[in-house]
Amino acid sequence: MSTPSKGRLIGVGTGPGDPELLTLKAVRALLDADVIAHFLKRGRNGNARTIVTPHWQETAIELPLAYPVTTEIHRHDGAYKAQIAAFFEQSASQIAAHLDQGRTVAVLSEGDPFFYGSYMHIHVRLAPFYKTEVIPGITSLSGCWSQAGVPLMQGDDVFTVLPGTLSREDLAQRLATADSAVIMKVGGNLPKIRQALSDAGKLDTAIYVERGTMENALVLRLSERDDSPAPYFSQVLVPGWTGRP
Amino acid sequence: MSTPSKGRLIGVGTGPGDPELLTLKAVRALLDADVIAHFLKRGRNGNARTIVTPHWQETAIELPLAYPVTTEIHRHDGAYKAQIAAFFEQSASQIAAHLDQGRTVAVLSEGDPFFYGSYMHIHVRLAPFYKTEVIPGITSLSGCWSQAGVPLMQGDDVFTVLPGTLSREDLAQRLATADSAVIMKVGGNLPKIRQALSDAGKLDTAIYVERGTMENALVLRLSERDDSPAPYFSQVLVPGWTGRP
Repeated sequence: MSTPSKGRLIGVGTGPGDPELLTLKAVRALLDADVIAHFLKRGRNGNARTIVTPHWQETAIELPLAYPVTTEIHRHDGAYKAQIAAFFEQSASQIAAHLDQGRTVAVLSEGDPFFYGSYMHIHVRLAPFYKTEVIPGITSLSGCWSQAGVPLMQGDDVFTVLPGTLSREDLAQRLATADSAVIMKVGGNLPKIRQALSDAGKLDTAIYVERGTMENALVLRLSERDDSPAPYFSQVLVPGWTGRP
Repeated sequence: MSTPSKGRLIGVGTGPGDPELLTLKAVRALLDADVIAHFLKRGRNGNARTIVTPHWQETAIELPLAYPVTTEIHRHDGAYKAQIAAFFEQSASQIAAHLDQGRTVAVLSEGDPFFYGSYMHIHVRLAPFYKTEVIPGITSLSGCWSQAGVPLMQGDDVFTVLPGTLSREDLAQRLATADSAVIMKVGGNLPKIRQALSDAGKLDTAIYVERGTMENALVLRLSERDDSPAPYFSQVLVPGWTGRP
């Protein structure tokens, strides 16, 4: 008796927003996929689903993975962690059921699957048991600094990615010791981010980018941006590369 | 009397090595370009030139930009800096001459043009005077961690890119305070990098990746890699993402 041939799991990076920033490899994976899985937040299809629409084969099975609604629970709460872990367990099981049928399953990931992406939670659960491949995507970082037209780092520069959720002191200290930085998770943290940049002496050169590479992208000096909450797809760029030849 | 219509400058990211990791946008830019410029080292065509070959239009003018041979001069030497600055000035002039003829000039850049890329030197010289666009590419970072299949960062992790040229003390301190890191410019610095990782208590989990996404890619635990010099396309990955749900 032979075991059924197992399928392949592919994490597919769909890039930062511009549908043309999909790679040739991602397009091929979408055409080859038997099943295309994608994450949803609050009942809305994500950008990844929109980006791949032109490359969607009619025969592909769609597997939407809807995040549990957790707006009432804080992200560091144990109840939140248990709920989100259960969600990833269940999502992995649904994908595994397709893999066990020998199907190729593409899991869409905005940006790059391994750069703060949800796909990672699926990967660590299934990679030990199935053939896997990760197709990298353009990160939101590259999307934002390309949109702004601002080079950030060169040569021996130290570059750091910081979440805007850090304390003012921690942010300021890390900004002071890195040559260049990008601050993600801006959201409601703009007043604190501004203070930390000021503490580090880097407020004047900081750039605010919203929805990099998307149609409604916005680039401003941070000094021209008010303190109202920023949308999900926003970053603060802190250029380094002093001493340009 | 009207001035001649000026051309467009496009920095085109060609990704980390796998020719399929070119974006749809990069392919279109190559098809539209009147002139395609690319950097060369020591008489060898770079990877970028090889990657775009299938998308090269017969009518496109090729503009090779050959780095001056500087093996005799140290990188931090004033003579080196002057020579390399002169090279970028001259390259920018050659490109500007085409732009002044109204031509669209695509400048190839391995990886992402604004992530430690040579294109930045052209961009800062010409962007004030010509229409420019930057097409982001997959970075070598994404190429290497996707090749390794190792997720590095998640949630509120701080991520840092470090050049292997830093001192052991500086490397160790930065490795200790970042959640996850990638060390670039590995070259002859492997013994020092290993010591710094040991100092920071992160040697055991470090991964060595050579030529990520290329045909002859190699992934090893750093502990299994000897101390002989590493090729140009190599990185050391230091995974974070502890406390996975």
